[in-house]
Amino acid sequence: MVELKQIKDLSHDSPSKIVLLVIDGMGGLPHPKTGKTELESAKKPNLDKIAKESICGLTDPVGQGITPGSAAGHLAIFGYDPIKYIVGRGIIEALGIGLELRASDIAARGNFCTIDDQGIITDRRAGRILTEKGVELCRLLNEIKFEEIEMVTAPVKEHRFVLILRGEGLSPELTDSDPQRVGLSSKKIEALSPQAVRTAGIANEFVTQAKGRLSGEDSANMVLLRGFSRHPEIPSISDIYKLNPAAIAVYPMYRGLASLLGMEILPAGNNISDEIESLGRHYTDYDFFFIHFKSTDSRGEDGDFDGKIRAIEELDNALPSLLNLNPDVLIVTGDHSTPATLAMHSWHPVPFMLCSEWCRPDSVVEFSERACLEGGLGRFPAIEIMPLAMANALKLDKFGA
Amino acid sequence: MVELKQIKDLSHDSPSKIVLLVIDGMGGLPHPKTGKTELESAKKPNLDKIAKESICGLTDPVGQGITPGSAAGHLAIFGYDPIKYIVGRGIIEALGIGLELRASDIAARGNFCTIDDQGIITDRRAGRILTEKGVELCRLLNEIKFEEIEMVTAPVKEHRFVLILRGEGLSPELTDSDPQRVGLSSKKIEALSPQAVRTAGIANEFVTQAKGRLSGEDSANMVLLRGFSRHPEIPSISDIYKLNPAAIAVYPMYRGLASLLGMEILPAGNNISDEIESLGRHYTDYDFFFIHFKSTDSRGEDGDFDGKIRAIEELDNALPSLLNLNPDVLIVTGDHSTPATLAMHSWHPVPFMLCSEWCRPDSVVEFSERACLEGGLGRFPAIEIMPLAMANALKLDKFGA
Repeated sequence: MVELKQIKDLSHDSPSKIVLLVIDGMGGLPHPKTGKTELESAKKPNLDKIAKESICGLTDPVGQGITPGSAAGHLAIFGYDPIKYIVGRGIIEALGIGLELRASDIAARGNFCTIDDQGIITDRRAGRILTEKGVELCRLLNEIKFEEIEMVTAPVKEHRFVLILRGEGLSPELTDSDPQRVGLSSKKIEALSPQAVRTAGIANEFVTQAKGRLSGEDSANMVLLRGFSRHPEIPSISDIYKLNPAAIAVYPMYRGLASLLGMEILPAGNNISDEIESLGRHYTDYDFFFIHFKSTDSRGEDGDFDGKIRAIEELDNALPSLLNLNPDVLIVTGDHSTPATLAMHSWHPVPFMLCSEWCRPDSVVEFSERACLEGGLGRFPAIEIMPLAMANALKLDKFGA
Repeated sequence: MVELKQIKDLSHDSPSKIVLLVIDGMGGLPHPKTGKTELESAKKPNLDKIAKESICGLTDPVGQGITPGSAAGHLAIFGYDPIKYIVGRGIIEALGIGLELRASDIAARGNFCTIDDQGIITDRRAGRILTEKGVELCRLLNEIKFEEIEMVTAPVKEHRFVLILRGEGLSPELTDSDPQRVGLSSKKIEALSPQAVRTAGIANEFVTQAKGRLSGEDSANMVLLRGFSRHPEIPSISDIYKLNPAAIAVYPMYRGLASLLGMEILPAGNNISDEIESLGRHYTDYDFFFIHFKSTDSRGEDGDFDGKIRAIEELDNALPSLLNLNPDVLIVTGDHSTPATLAMHSWHPVPFMLCSEWCRPDSVVEFSERACLEGGLGRFPAIEIMPLAMANALKLDKFGA
């Protein structure tokens, strides 16, 4: 397999433009009654028209049988081996609410929870308190001060928050305080390396003080921390591919991930039409655009088969203004499957199509799981998408003498 | 590629059941007269019915063009990279006759051979002496005694036997005594590491004494040793996949290999009907069943095209009682191909099908080499079978944040 360092050596700048449209959780499973998947059930004349002119296939984000998280699925699409480049849970949570992190910051995922008089956890999610309550409790926690470092908590949603530690010499090599079960006490945070001993002390001190400040609260009187992590060392898209990349995504998590990879974040509005309008407005300023569409995944996770069909149709409706831009390379795929019948992310491969003047189209005339099986690209690892995009944009040199 | 350590982190226990049916040497080649392979020629309504409800594909046990031995082929099916996990020839031979080995035992493959007055080898296989003769000669050899270690030989078949050395501080890092050619003398066994010097001495002493004890024999008057090896360090299936696994196999070699991987060995009787009956009897006690069917490989190695067809039909006939158990995940595949026209193991990929509620069936309606080419799984490495099985049994967590 060609690796990023080889791709970096082969990549060169050129005026051609690549548009990569990620339909989150796009792949599905047949409905028991109709035998058709969400994609097969939707009316999507524009997607089908693109498929006719494209080379199609099915991608494996991580590997056969492996269900990717959102970060892993997207890293693969952008050419980063998701097994090598791990983005920790604390970082993901921070990115998800759009926090700007420094390279040395430590982030942890936090839960507000409830404990009894003996310190035993009675509800790890404090009955999923209202988000407004979480905002109020974070304000309380943010009164905690440390001498040598900065500390801030930020509410995420319901009982979830993020803890950020900022300062010199911190390390994320820490165990969780969250025992992941009720009926146990919060665990002492332990250092996993000598460099992390000081950070472990700070984190435990935070937990102790947080417990003190929350002791008068009815709805949640303790915190649980897990997934201490740092902004991973990851080469940027412009560094590897010599691209000038931009991202358009309604959801903060995907903007955060794109920003982590060095993409410029463009306004996205509230829906796919807004996103495509933004694409048009900024089309001359960049040569690579990542556009993220979320509703397919959300409806899939809800188990809402018809809702997922409608999301696909909403996307399809918005496509003509994208097609009018006539990008040199247009790719449509997903980061993973989210079958509505399973109501969760899944391991099933993801339909893929690439349309360019040089794509060598196949005989596929419909964009679906079954149709893409017959595609010219076969079934392939998602980390090969970017080399394909670059090649079709004529931005990749010949390999070897 | 996801490795065993990642799969181990993602695996969790659950009540769902996986049945993995291995049809040994299943893949074939077209008959020159009919143009159809053994699978394509056999009447196999049950296999074809499963194919209709399954996702199909073709597996490569080791890699394109690589012909696997039986151990390598099976290791791949169970998710162990056969290039990384090597089971030595001595161990294979010992497992093959059902010897129970300790972790520190050293096993070597032995040949009875003939030498002339000058000690020159005249026949490496002693004219393939009768198995009964081998039994008798092993009895002679077993009179040899060492002070600090135990030594035993066991007959395998014809001129083949196994030598086991048992005791503290032994090492398998030894050269062969077998020069692999007639016209040469038996070679002195050399230590390949300082720790193996003592074992080399013992092994050479065994050869010297064996020569003495066999000197009066007409049919075979010497031994040749090769493939000194030890029970490999290999994580168990329960450790990696959190499964409670059982194996049903008529042939000792496959029981031995299953036992090496930590499977419970269930009674197998004499044929596939007995095996499936045993499956039914023990169905509630385990969550993973490996069922091995041997005759397809044997008839293939015999070059018996029609015999291999009959073996497939025998298997197919026995399937309804397996299907009645309605396992959550049913996989049918082979460990390698053994085309009757070649009369040996081959490198050709192996038909594969997986049937589960979540398998995303494809358009394949027949179980054969050609039909599986159109399958939704495409062509994939056999070491991805277990992640697929685990995913379909909903026993694998999401990868990455």
